[in-house]
Amino acid sequence: MRPTIGFLGTGSMGHPMVVNLLKAGYTVRVWNRTAERAASLAAQGATILSLSEEVAEPGALIISSLSTDRVLNEVVGGNHALLRKLGPEGIHISTSTVSPETSRNLAEGHRRYGVTYLAAPVLGRPDAAADAKLSIFLSGPAQAKERVQPVLRALGPRVFDLGEDPGAANVAKLACNFLLASAIEAMAEAFALVEKNGIDRRRLADLLVQTVFDCPAYRNYGRQIAEQHYQPALFKLSLGLKDISLTLESAASSLVPLPLASLLRDHLISALAKGRGDFDWTGLAGEVSEAAGLHQSSAESNDTEADAYAESGFDSQYR
Amino acid sequence: MRPTIGFLGTGSMGHPMVVNLLKAGYTVRVWNRTAERAASLAAQGATILSLSEEVAEPGALIISSLSTDRVLNEVVGGNHALLRKLGPEGIHISTSTVSPETSRNLAEGHRRYGVTYLAAPVLGRPDAAADAKLSIFLSGPAQAKERVQPVLRALGPRVFDLGEDPGAANVAKLACNFLLASAIEAMAEAFALVEKNGIDRRRLADLLVQTVFDCPAYRNYGRQIAEQHYQPALFKLSLGLKDISLTLESAASSLVPLPLASLLRDHLISALAKGRGDFDWTGLAGEVSEAAGLHQSSAESNDTEADAYAESGFDSQYR
Amino acid sequence: MRPTIGFLGTGSMGHPMVVNLLKAGYTVRVWNRTAERAASLAAQGATILSLSEEVAEPGALIISSLSTDRVLNEVVGGNHALLRKLGPEGIHISTSTVSPETSRNLAEGHRRYGVTYLAAPVLGRPDAAADAKLSIFLSGPAQAKERVQPVLRALGPRVFDLGEDPGAANVAKLACNFLLASAIEAMAEAFALVEKNGIDRRRLADLLVQTVFDCPAYRNYGRQIAEQHYQPALFKLSLGLKDISLTLESAASSLVPLPLASLLRDHLISALAKGRGDFDWTGLAGEVSEAAGLHQSSAESNDTEADAYAESGFDSQYR
Amino acid sequence: MRPTIGFLGTGSMGHPMVVNLLKAGYTVRVWNRTAERAASLAAQGATILSLSEEVAEPGALIISSLSTDRVLNEVVGGNHALLRKLGPEGIHISTSTVSPETSRNLAEGHRRYGVTYLAAPVLGRPDAAADAKLSIFLSGPAQAKERVQPVLRALGPRVFDLGEDPGAANVAKLACNFLLASAIEAMAEAFALVEKNGIDRRRLADLLVQTVFDCPAYRNYGRQIAEQHYQPALFKLSLGLKDISLTLESAASSLVPLPLASLLRDHLISALAKGRGDFDWTGLAGEVSEAAGLHQSSAESNDTEADAYAESGFDSQYR
Repeated sequence: MRPTIGFLGTGSMGHPMVVNLLKAGYTVRVWNRTAERAASLAAQGATILSLSEEVAEPGALIISSLSTDRVLNEVVGGNHALLRKLGPEGIHISTSTVSPETSRNLAEGHRRYGVTYLAAPVLGRPDAAADAKLSIFLSGPAQAKERVQPVLRALGPRVFDLGEDPGAANVAKLACNFLLASAIEAMAEAFALVEKNGIDRRRLADLLVQTVFDCPAYRNYGRQIAEQHYQPALFKLSLGLKDISLTLESAASSLVPLPLASLLRDHLISALAKGRGDFDWTGLAGEVSEAAGLHQSSAESNDTEADAYAESGFDSQYR
Repeated sequence: MRPTIGFLGTGSMGHPMVVNLLKAGYTVRVWNRTAERAASLAAQGATILSLSEEVAEPGALIISSLSTDRVLNEVVGGNHALLRKLGPEGIHISTSTVSPETSRNLAEGHRRYGVTYLAAPVLGRPDAAADAKLSIFLSGPAQAKERVQPVLRALGPRVFDLGEDPGAANVAKLACNFLLASAIEAMAEAFALVEKNGIDRRRLADLLVQTVFDCPAYRNYGRQIAEQHYQPALFKLSLGLKDISLTLESAASSLVPLPLASLLRDHLISALAKGRGDFDWTGLAGEVSEAAGLHQSSAESNDTEADAYAESGFDSQYR
Repeated sequence: MRPTIGFLGTGSMGHPMVVNLLKAGYTVRVWNRTAERAASLAAQGATILSLSEEVAEPGALIISSLSTDRVLNEVVGGNHALLRKLGPEGIHISTSTVSPETSRNLAEGHRRYGVTYLAAPVLGRPDAAADAKLSIFLSGPAQAKERVQPVLRALGPRVFDLGEDPGAANVAKLACNFLLASAIEAMAEAFALVEKNGIDRRRLADLLVQTVFDCPAYRNYGRQIAEQHYQPALFKLSLGLKDISLTLESAASSLVPLPLASLLRDHLISALAKGRGDFDWTGLAGEVSEAAGLHQSSAESNDTEADAYAESGFDSQYR
Repeated sequence: MRPTIGFLGTGSMGHPMVVNLLKAGYTVRVWNRTAERAASLAAQGATILSLSEEVAEPGALIISSLSTDRVLNEVVGGNHALLRKLGPEGIHISTSTVSPETSRNLAEGHRRYGVTYLAAPVLGRPDAAADAKLSIFLSGPAQAKERVQPVLRALGPRVFDLGEDPGAANVAKLACNFLLASAIEAMAEAFALVEKNGIDRRRLADLLVQTVFDCPAYRNYGRQIAEQHYQPALFKLSLGLKDISLTLESAASSLVPLPLASLLRDHLISALAKGRGDFDWTGLAGEVSEAAGLHQSSAESNDTEADAYAESGFDSQYR
């Protein structure tokens, strides 16, 4: 019989993760700040609870999927009732993209209650979560990592072990998001250059994925940027700024200059300053276009166009 | 019976291209500045000539594979005997990575002799040229592009038509090289960050190609940068600087700011200033490591190590 | 008769400020974390106290000169005994370079005790403090600003009123330090360029201050950078990084991209990564020289040289 | 009796220089591409000639004030009739801001005719030229520099000798213009930061010149940038881009990365892309404002406002 799992946070990522845990046969006890958003999970077999500490059982697992470092610190890090109840043998799997410093501090705080903290940030967007195709970056004590393997397999096929440092998985995740944003910036500049030389942006996007850039990062983002199609957001620009800022803070504390990350941050801040925080983060390409004197395409694309786009096989597995 | 082709420049790219043309049944008339380097092609059936204009026959094709804009201008652009001999119906397929301005000027100059200029820069390194796996970017008059298709198919399986502007294919090629250099910079920064957080650089490189960056650009370069293995060069850093400089010049003349390209240029210049112009262009990652206070690995790797590396399946198809 | 002033923090800036207050006839009650460093002030008439809250008298003034936002928050912001004792009519003049957010938060916290917080960061190095030549940036409630004028005049001849927002004076001070660091970077680049063209760096430094850059910023820093004379520090590089980081954080929270500040931060981080945090902050010029393949001059200049330098009239009034 | 001087180019800088030479008692023979623009100088005693080579007399001096490297190369460098007539003992004083490479090439070309080339770029705007207050950077053979001193003194009070390398004076001049543009960028960023924090931009501009930045560069430009007053141009943005581009080319050929110059170039290109090439070069500050989501002030200021501005004592001596 499969163990009970406590789950904190059923937003766009947490919700499909709970569904997959239920499908895999786990008993799941769920809490969400706005309980209504969790309600539909009850029909699928989850128990909905009104206090976060109620999800925990002694020595069991809890999984969190929360939006920021601050919320994670409040809901779990500062929640003594929860940690006390979880107690020795308890494990907290933290799937949020937070700073390595936050993970290291939480790990230390958890230890006072005998609880093991595992950093397990996930790579993939909501649809990948729904398809149980997330890639999971994992770090923390070896024994705990061994124990949670079956649970993680219910969420995605690939688990990458980054070692014992609870901050390591977060560093690796931040590095991936930084690499994605860098690819967005590079394409934005390349597309502006070809556009001003009379070449269709989509022509270059297609050419890239037929040669050296034949991978999801360029396939997915290339088309969005070529078509300047930044809404609706699959991953919000404001969250992109959060992640690049965390990357730079982490780099500063380990004394690593990241000039390309600095450049990305400047463009993301500029997009926010112009009121584009709710655009998809590929929208940072708009800054590049504007600096070249090119106008952004209208944000109000009609639905037909958007549908055609969606049907064309756009693969939104990863972010 | 297949037509005769004149070929100018049998360096590391031109040489294997001639071999493939001979294999495909073409008669090839070859010229190279240092004739000895072309000599071995005679055994394979090529005719070696001592004057560049001798490779041309009236109304035939010539292909050039020359190192820089200046050399291309001298050997072909300013070579009236050659262009006159080639004459109406003659076509010049220019495979070098040069500026779009150079191509546009050459196209105009050729027209005075009735010769058609086609820009046909190739994506791929010497081994891809040897395997007839080059990707070819093509632009110029439609009729000429149609006529040269069979010849290009002997060099690589993919021909991308970029339109009539003779500069367009060069713009697209520069854009690709810029995107590759951007990926190098991004990985260099990401690897420095994880290294200073105690994570093996190769671990991140492996993880990337198993998730969103599963493509030749990241597979090939990722490993080189992770291992800081910058010699021998597959594509020299000094040539990388040439290409990024051409990209910036072309962007300036079409009024497109490219802040990421500017960053790349600064790092490439710095590497040259430190005497690393003959490193592979992935060596620009060394600038990132040094700025983080990390030491570059020794350049004098022993042969055993290098062999193991080569045998490990490194795919050097593209640059 | 002049009022009593409480003074918190007698480091390299605070110490000479206390001396000037005593000279001006004020009664000064002093606290410093390491009491020995304050001891010499007793001989000049100050009262040395062992608890920070003891410096306060009901309705009186206190002045703080503390190194970082964290220390200021601990020593004053979180010191309820101190604020309660100071009480209504009490004023706290905060001379440290901290973030505007810190000032705004402190102002709010002080108000609960009826205490008025004034941000009063100072421009000038220790010798300017000793000569009572500091420039003072002041913001906060008008009435309190009016009341403290005579006290501030004992510290420097120029007081700049930045308005009511307690964060405004800090923003202006950060902007000044950012402008100084920008001038350092610009000179570093210009000097590297001329040096590699065979021109003596000092030649350009001299020329600048005889033409359009005839002001303390370029006069003082220009020579240090030209001579690559980065020790001993007049203002430590690690503090420079702190200030530029505060500038960028403040800019991010008001959504202002500062690409030049980002560049400065990268160079300062790099210098720290190489173990140069105790250099003068002009030492960021070393990063520029190294990137150009130029070697930094030896840090171990002999004393004779250093003396000659000191006697040459170097004006260290400002930083 | 004072020698005859040939003068090539009577644009906004050359015209007032000729007037000062006439005032100083020299006989001046003038050529300008559009002769009408030189006509008014006839009334003041100059001889207007229709062919450029006519201004030269054997062994005499000529001075050129031409807009770009290309024009200088055409009007003088490639003008064999002119150089032959000037002949041994002839001296050409080149006051344009051109690349050091252009100066070095011209010096070599002149030597074939026995003519000495002196690089003598000037710092100062048209009004400084009119007031004979230009600063002159001079390099070339010592004997010739000695001989031209009296002539240069008629143009400005300060001559800076940069040595024998004919390119050295140009390098120094480019370095100065780069430093000016850097100060513009730094102020633009600082002003955007304070503006978004509710502080009047002019308040910071005033504060700067009362403290550490009390010099013409910050006094003149600070106010223009604070008021976002970019027209009419005292020095056109398009010329600023030319100079920063020359700086970067020169730096690249001596292998010096200049990240701040790269940043400036990107902002200048962006301004041109938006149709602001005729703005004053302080207008690059507009790019910084826009990236922060701030609107530029209207370009159509009425005349009254512009007059008030002019009367307010703006000191336009330098650029």
